[in-house]
Amino acid sequence: MRFDEAYSGNVFIKSHPNYEESEAVLYGMPMDWTVSFRPGSRFGPARIREVSIGLEEYSPYLDRELEEVKFFDAGDIPLPFGNPQKSIDIIESYIDGLLEDGKFPLGMGGEHLVSWPVIKAMYKKYPDMAVIHMDAHTDLREDYEGEPLSHAAIIRKAADLIGPKNVYSFGIRSGLKEEFEWAKEQGMHISKFEVLEPLKEVLPKLAGRPVYVTIDIDVLDPAHAPGTGTVDCGGITSKELLASIHAIAGSDIKVVGCDLVEVAPVYDPSEQTANTASKLIREMILGWVQKK
Amino acid sequence: MRFDEAYSGNVFIKSHPNYEESEAVLYGMPMDWTVSFRPGSRFGPARIREVSIGLEEYSPYLDRELEEVKFFDAGDIPLPFGNPQKSIDIIESYIDGLLEDGKFPLGMGGEHLVSWPVIKAMYKKYPDMAVIHMDAHTDLREDYEGEPLSHAAIIRKAADLIGPKNVYSFGIRSGLKEEFEWAKEQGMHISKFEVLEPLKEVLPKLAGRPVYVTIDIDVLDPAHAPGTGTVDCGGITSKELLASIHAIAGSDIKVVGCDLVEVAPVYDPSEQTANTASKLIREMILGWVQKK
Amino acid sequence: MRFDEAYSGNVFIKSHPNYEESEAVLYGMPMDWTVSFRPGSRFGPARIREVSIGLEEYSPYLDRELEEVKFFDAGDIPLPFGNPQKSIDIIESYIDGLLEDGKFPLGMGGEHLVSWPVIKAMYKKYPDMAVIHMDAHTDLREDYEGEPLSHAAIIRKAADLIGPKNVYSFGIRSGLKEEFEWAKEQGMHISKFEVLEPLKEVLPKLAGRPVYVTIDIDVLDPAHAPGTGTVDCGGITSKELLASIHAIAGSDIKVVGCDLVEVAPVYDPSEQTANTASKLIREMILGWVQKK
Amino acid sequence: MRFDEAYSGNVFIKSHPNYEESEAVLYGMPMDWTVSFRPGSRFGPARIREVSIGLEEYSPYLDRELEEVKFFDAGDIPLPFGNPQKSIDIIESYIDGLLEDGKFPLGMGGEHLVSWPVIKAMYKKYPDMAVIHMDAHTDLREDYEGEPLSHAAIIRKAADLIGPKNVYSFGIRSGLKEEFEWAKEQGMHISKFEVLEPLKEVLPKLAGRPVYVTIDIDVLDPAHAPGTGTVDCGGITSKELLASIHAIAGSDIKVVGCDLVEVAPVYDPSEQTANTASKLIREMILGWVQKK
Amino acid sequence: MRFDEAYSGNVFIKSHPNYEESEAVLYGMPMDWTVSFRPGSRFGPARIREVSIGLEEYSPYLDRELEEVKFFDAGDIPLPFGNPQKSIDIIESYIDGLLEDGKFPLGMGGEHLVSWPVIKAMYKKYPDMAVIHMDAHTDLREDYEGEPLSHAAIIRKAADLIGPKNVYSFGIRSGLKEEFEWAKEQGMHISKFEVLEPLKEVLPKLAGRPVYVTIDIDVLDPAHAPGTGTVDCGGITSKELLASIHAIAGSDIKVVGCDLVEVAPVYDPSEQTANTASKLIREMILGWVQKK
Amino acid sequence: MRFDEAYSGNVFIKSHPNYEESEAVLYGMPMDWTVSFRPGSRFGPARIREVSIGLEEYSPYLDRELEEVKFFDAGDIPLPFGNPQKSIDIIESYIDGLLEDGKFPLGMGGEHLVSWPVIKAMYKKYPDMAVIHMDAHTDLREDYEGEPLSHAAIIRKAADLIGPKNVYSFGIRSGLKEEFEWAKEQGMHISKFEVLEPLKEVLPKLAGRPVYVTIDIDVLDPAHAPGTGTVDCGGITSKELLASIHAIAGSDIKVVGCDLVEVAPVYDPSEQTANTASKLIREMILGWVQKK
Repeated sequence: MRFDEAYSGNVFIKSHPNYEESEAVLYGMPMDWTVSFRPGSRFGPARIREVSIGLEEYSPYLDRELEEVKFFDAGDIPLPFGNPQKSIDIIESYIDGLLEDGKFPLGMGGEHLVSWPVIKAMYKKYPDMAVIHMDAHTDLREDYEGEPLSHAAIIRKAADLIGPKNVYSFGIRSGLKEEFEWAKEQGMHISKFEVLEPLKEVLPKLAGRPVYVTIDIDVLDPAHAPGTGTVDCGGITSKELLASIHAIAGSDIKVVGCDLVEVAPVYDPSEQTANTASKLIREMILGWVQKK
Repeated sequence: MRFDEAYSGNVFIKSHPNYEESEAVLYGMPMDWTVSFRPGSRFGPARIREVSIGLEEYSPYLDRELEEVKFFDAGDIPLPFGNPQKSIDIIESYIDGLLEDGKFPLGMGGEHLVSWPVIKAMYKKYPDMAVIHMDAHTDLREDYEGEPLSHAAIIRKAADLIGPKNVYSFGIRSGLKEEFEWAKEQGMHISKFEVLEPLKEVLPKLAGRPVYVTIDIDVLDPAHAPGTGTVDCGGITSKELLASIHAIAGSDIKVVGCDLVEVAPVYDPSEQTANTASKLIREMILGWVQKK
Repeated sequence: MRFDEAYSGNVFIKSHPNYEESEAVLYGMPMDWTVSFRPGSRFGPARIREVSIGLEEYSPYLDRELEEVKFFDAGDIPLPFGNPQKSIDIIESYIDGLLEDGKFPLGMGGEHLVSWPVIKAMYKKYPDMAVIHMDAHTDLREDYEGEPLSHAAIIRKAADLIGPKNVYSFGIRSGLKEEFEWAKEQGMHISKFEVLEPLKEVLPKLAGRPVYVTIDIDVLDPAHAPGTGTVDCGGITSKELLASIHAIAGSDIKVVGCDLVEVAPVYDPSEQTANTASKLIREMILGWVQKK
Repeated sequence: MRFDEAYSGNVFIKSHPNYEESEAVLYGMPMDWTVSFRPGSRFGPARIREVSIGLEEYSPYLDRELEEVKFFDAGDIPLPFGNPQKSIDIIESYIDGLLEDGKFPLGMGGEHLVSWPVIKAMYKKYPDMAVIHMDAHTDLREDYEGEPLSHAAIIRKAADLIGPKNVYSFGIRSGLKEEFEWAKEQGMHISKFEVLEPLKEVLPKLAGRPVYVTIDIDVLDPAHAPGTGTVDCGGITSKELLASIHAIAGSDIKVVGCDLVEVAPVYDPSEQTANTASKLIREMILGWVQKK
Repeated sequence: MRFDEAYSGNVFIKSHPNYEESEAVLYGMPMDWTVSFRPGSRFGPARIREVSIGLEEYSPYLDRELEEVKFFDAGDIPLPFGNPQKSIDIIESYIDGLLEDGKFPLGMGGEHLVSWPVIKAMYKKYPDMAVIHMDAHTDLREDYEGEPLSHAAIIRKAADLIGPKNVYSFGIRSGLKEEFEWAKEQGMHISKFEVLEPLKEVLPKLAGRPVYVTIDIDVLDPAHAPGTGTVDCGGITSKELLASIHAIAGSDIKVVGCDLVEVAPVYDPSEQTANTASKLIREMILGWVQKK
Repeated sequence: MRFDEAYSGNVFIKSHPNYEESEAVLYGMPMDWTVSFRPGSRFGPARIREVSIGLEEYSPYLDRELEEVKFFDAGDIPLPFGNPQKSIDIIESYIDGLLEDGKFPLGMGGEHLVSWPVIKAMYKKYPDMAVIHMDAHTDLREDYEGEPLSHAAIIRKAADLIGPKNVYSFGIRSGLKEEFEWAKEQGMHISKFEVLEPLKEVLPKLAGRPVYVTIDIDVLDPAHAPGTGTVDCGGITSKELLASIHAIAGSDIKVVGCDLVEVAPVYDPSEQTANTASKLIREMILGWVQKK
């Protein structure tokens, strides 16, 4: 009997065993300490990996198989419970490392605030970067009840850093009046309610540019993603979200990194949300990584 | 340390603290004793209030904020368990009081039978009133296995009272053959399966008239509202229901009262249904109350 | 007090009390031992029956009532736990018996492998038979990790038996690359992602032919059927599936038998999936049995 | 293929097919319309039957097998939703019929109020009857918020009918101060908190007398029966309740009828409560019916 | 119709409407951002209040009724999401206020770290104070993976402040080896596994002293409290915990404040844990407040 | 950034990274295809590992830490779905390998049938071996409805192989009359209902002998382990089961291998059962492995 290496049980299906040889790195950011409503997204990445065994390795949408892309599942980044600032610093430094090694970062949240340090790190490498943001919520607050480090402020921080005109939000159906007004004044793109059609209009404008894509699973209607912190009805279907991922894959933009956040398994006993997230991750790997 | 008044914990977000100054009154009718299948809607109003803290106060659909409408959350009307007749009498007298005080009544069920005493009270004040009814079920029975006071008979009672031609049902996909036939014979409007398109055709005909709107949450597909007594597939999406609420808001009818019924939280561990109901209530407040 | 016969508690609503007089027979095949992901569909048939009491007996889609069709609910076929081969043999012989008696077989799974012995039996009687297959998955494997008797191989077995050109798959969104290629090479029809529109194109080609229809509940999006073994997002709505059933009912094909499989109640605490399945069964009875 | 009689799916394991030959009759009373907290016990009897297939037919406690007792599962008594008085009348007349036919009545609730008509019927036949009552709650109210027909009043009604000194309550840990005082004044037996030890003291005093035993499943600690309307911690274990049933079986009292009430499956996703209830029913059948 | 004050929906049953006149104040501390395993206790206080309507107002254990004690339910203290230090400061200042007003503080968590600022505030007023601690876990860490503000460090902080010899822990069954050793070296009392018997021995030694009692609901076995962050089998029963509360009530110590923490409703669909917590709160009010 | 080896995410807490150096091997046997009631134990091992992060590494019962024992978590043995015979053969050969390498086997089920091939392998090495068996069920059937390979036959097979007098069953509360009789005739030890006290009597008789211990989690009362296939009330507490493990640890028997089976996570939304199982595994590692 031979066990040449430690059992690697809970990895995303078909992840590559070797970091060095991989083009992309999949990692979890198990943080949920600033959420204002229902916590639990810290367990999102582990559950997404666990249910990925129910996936086929082949995408009939893209006609590609997972073994055509070398991605390494690096597990979850250990983050200090209840300390947002230190968590953010750890993530930023982690992404710095990935980018130094030339890897495509593919993150799984965790609350949406985890995208903030990733975007900071990406921006250092890609100063002409744009951000595509799919979400039910604007996330454009300056702070949340006094806390500047909040999941509800992530896109505002990104907009302040890379310029509001470089941020494109889709599917938004919730936010403060002030947030919508701020976006309008700043010339930031917000598509309310819809994703696919406005995205198709925006993509040609971004042709050739490096783009980071951040998807909050709650852009889906709660019917399609009940397992998340803040459900908000009137969202898009998983069919539309898949089509949006494929629209990006078929466009001329250069995806340089991406994440999928806010899967909170405990609110979804059927595990529909984690299963859906795992399929979205597969399509993001197959559709976006090769763009690099 | 100062507590000037008792803690009022579980109220709908942004409800007004003062009854006298309010234009609308939000109240729960926690009754489910005549339901024929799965009980539990008595806990609907409390759960809808509880999750309303996850809502934003601003509607990007209507571009209005909750503080623009003064509504008072009066809590649940205490109803005697297992006594439908007395419950109905209590509700009717409660609504009589609200109308006397010039308030817009906005009720949360509870089973659909609770709409019956409300409609009775409204009709006394608005004898030219019409009823718009969104539901999966006809609710046109004369009785249910011998019981005339049944959630399955509420629309029949309303039709008998205000005249079948003044009742407009939408989204219906379940009922006895006799119920559909009775409606046809009586000239009552029933739109099978769909809501938004037929509603848009009906609204101009009702221009200027006082209308009471009653929404059974099961008009939504179970994917969008699993937490209800009798789920029935093939329903509309929450997007379509939101659009229907907005169509009414943008029409020339005069909404004089409304309710949302049949949210039964125990059948929905993800609380999607209660969250959706709380958003619908927000839109009903923002879109309909000012019509008064 | 008189009890002339044993209490027959959990039967499908309005099932006929007498086998001899019935045109159709409804039976459960409570087998889930070869499933590769989440087991539990053995309890599907019982739960579908149980919630059928929440159904109306009348279909406003087809304008027919259940009492217009005589169907006998024969309960579940007792199957030996963990023995796929013997289970298959028992089912085949059971169906042989039904066909001898001139009955229309209407089966409820259980895992999809249960359709294999039914198709074998049907084919003996209807050698010119075609199969219409609605599913998220191709099910065209030759074996699953070495096991030829697998829920993932059922359509391959059927295709091998009746000829790939006689099998029409709809709604497929998951499978191995090899499976899609095999189908293409063999001239087997696969409609990816969609059901209703391609079905409408296919039906005229099958006019007059005997057709067996097998529906895997996971052809529905997980939003509409979370209670199944392998959920896969991007599926169709229950509205589209109902319309597809009605399209078949309105066509010139001759449905000679059918099944609905893979309802696994434990993954759906709201029981949406079982309720939906019971409505689908009602429409299949009302729409298809009279074709015989 | 032969089906000599209709499929009788959901019956309690090993129930006898023939009413006439049976000594005992098992029946459900699916009523929950007067409950003051969480409804749902109407589905108790069906779920208890369903999970009874997980039971062995042999009791290692009593060294008896179910086939040694002929009991007929008569299904659920159809009761009118939301009408307590009519429901009670129907049950009383049903029990009258059973007693006329010389059957031992074994009822499954439903809310506790269902025991009231049974006790009325029993008392007509056994005027020297005592009642043994195991429950978390006194159930000694005269009315509940004005309603005399309430699950919280059942034991008071029984005590008023057969005399408080003939009622023996065990395991009580919840009630109004007035209820405890009334019991004391009237000389009614109440054992607070405990069941087995005080029961052993009481049983000899009841030797030779006909006794009706009513068990509210909430006498168990919520750890052992989470699936009930009103859980109340500090209760007994299922081991102690089994031992109490066996103590009665081994005593010299003459059990003439019994019930087990308040199983509400929806609050117990693990179905522990229904499984436990089905085992308790088995022991009640094996231990008590032969006393007749 | 008159509504003299705002609807106060979700308050603990029989709470007094007036702060000034009350002897005790019940408040929630909805914080869970430092938990290392499963978050969700922020929703504990609201759910405990909600289910308290299922309680009787009378305790048959203590023969007292809630109206004999004036306690004011002050609702939840608003705490900044994800900021432990600021949360702690807010709580401490809140308790300072209560103590100034001469109130008995009765807190509901939230994670166990919330007890830390309460103890700090209490100690300023009662420098000879002891702490009684019931818990599955030692909570004696200096930090948790580098974070000194952690739910796993609360008792260590308390011991460092008031002296380890003034802290008495009961029911402990989980911790680092170092924690147990530290306690031993410091002369701190730890009763492993058991609560009631060792408590009875300790109470006389504390006679006359002011004591703060902090109960982590996970001192209960998971069978009795599944709805908590870190379940750990081998715990005590709710019967033993009730008896321990009553033992304190009957002793000569002077309880000056108390809390019950770590109820996390989402992990307990049956709501057994919240129901149990609400009964424990009732007994703490009835048994301990009058000691003041 | 350095990743020297693949991420090994879901391993039991503190498992040793190296197979060669380890004394014990922990492995999962994810098979549930012969279960007669509720399937799902295939997911037991993965969930037990996942929740093990909530465990402390130190046992205050045994005063030992996990790092004192080198155990290697080898993951789950891949088993062919629906093929019991092949699954058994694979397991037996796997254990043969472990024993050849001198490892202590510690298995996690899966259904109880998985213990059969382990015992076969162990017996080849330890022909004087005894089996200690803790379970709610006898598991002494010769076959289950004709299937000799059944979870209900595992102990019978073991008894036939090693001799009934070498098998000691504890906690049994369910089985056929014939099973109990067979055990009696054969001189096999069965302690009904209880575990700890009879175990203490048996242990001295087994002093010095190699013993394999197999624990079915359903020996616990459903209150302590709701997440299993066949719950059966009247069982022991987790406290008693822990004490039984410790009694074996403190005895003079030589545990040569062991397993814990039948954890089925889907039936336990609170994950109490998996958490309890992970603690039991920790105690088995700390208490039993060093006996080797």
